[in-house]
Amino acid sequence: MHEILIEEKILARNDEIAARNRNALKERGIYSINIVSAPGAGKTSLIERMAGELKNMGLRFAVVEGDLEGDFDSKRIERHGVPALQITTGRACHLDAHQISHALPWVFGQDSIELLVIENVGNMVCPAEYDLGEDIMVTVMSTTEGDDKPLKYPAIFSASGALVINKTDLAPHTDFDMNRARENALKVNPYLKIFETSCRTGSGVGAWATYLAGLVKDGKKK
Amino acid sequence: MHEILIEEKILARNDEIAARNRNALKERGIYSINIVSAPGAGKTSLIERMAGELKNMGLRFAVVEGDLEGDFDSKRIERHGVPALQITTGRACHLDAHQISHALPWVFGQDSIELLVIENVGNMVCPAEYDLGEDIMVTVMSTTEGDDKPLKYPAIFSASGALVINKTDLAPHTDFDMNRARENALKVNPYLKIFETSCRTGSGVGAWATYLAGLVKDGKKK
Repeated sequence: MHEILIEEKILARNDEIAARNRNALKERGIYSINIVSAPGAGKTSLIERMAGELKNMGLRFAVVEGDLEGDFDSKRIERHGVPALQITTGRACHLDAHQISHALPWVFGQDSIELLVIENVGNMVCPAEYDLGEDIMVTVMSTTEGDDKPLKYPAIFSASGALVINKTDLAPHTDFDMNRARENALKVNPYLKIFETSCRTGSGVGAWATYLAGLVKDGKKK
Repeated sequence: MHEILIEEKILARNDEIAARNRNALKERGIYSINIVSAPGAGKTSLIERMAGELKNMGLRFAVVEGDLEGDFDSKRIERHGVPALQITTGRACHLDAHQISHALPWVFGQDSIELLVIENVGNMVCPAEYDLGEDIMVTVMSTTEGDDKPLKYPAIFSASGALVINKTDLAPHTDFDMNRARENALKVNPYLKIFETSCRTGSGVGAWATYLAGLVKDGKKK
């Protein structure tokens, strides 16, 4: 019981800071997404692919990267001409709103960006509970993880507004059933917008980027 | 600081219970492993494949399954004639020693088993810190996750005695470099015993099962 009370306090404090982050981003007209997935599902590859697509649409964005250690991912992103800031979480299995609040001055220093992409630590459990102040959470799952993932990690699918099913190029080599995956995802969260991508071939990334650009544009109207 | 102190207390308490679990298993001559991985890397498929191999070696084992929700995995295991107990962790992103202590009476009720296989929640961060009382932790990573995983999630590779690199059948369809993966894993933990498997084709599972059966036999001598 004691443990649970402490956790609730930590989450309540996180929610307060997340609300402040959300307001600060909104004031500057920056839409934000929080990308979550299992390790190796393709979050960074998706962002690399988005760099080309969003550039063609004239939409500038910045990336905040969360990892336990190292700056491998922010280096990958920067190679595409997209500004990226690395946060290392040490032993922590998710980003929190406090870490993002410290990243915001850097974000606001980036020239004329309209979108902030936060790449969370690879983890399908804990990030679901930590609001960072983003407009929507986006779950990436890969076909190689199996079509049962939404039923086994429901919280993260429930908390998300969009689902990107990645590595469609590998699906024919596995038992993955796309219809079953979609069915399972919608069983957990009927409001999920679902996209199918292969970051290896680039297939489907255009549709996802177009949808995202639409959200950014709609976000500005509010 | 306050948060960290509370966490240390929780971990210290966990370690005490883990030590009791370890003694209780040892007294009954049961060797135990704690399998950890990212979601969808193939932990359950590996255990399903082990069922056939270990049966041929005359080695009986039982499985304790950790999942956030559902009993999909324990049902899969039971179909192979292996007794399996499902623990659902709800919002918790890892098993702990206390949960395992409650599963031990069930384990000890299984007829003439020599090995307990614990399948942890799919997560490459938190399980590293929670000793369950097992003899060794075993990390499963899949080729589709990328060969950089050991550098990005070092704690779990450091805590493990063996690494199973699964989905070797999919490697030719990806950028995965097996030499680089081995190098990265050994950089983090030079003592890792590394195995390569495809649970889809069965390739390599025999070598892993033979090694594991050796550990069980050696464990009995102590």
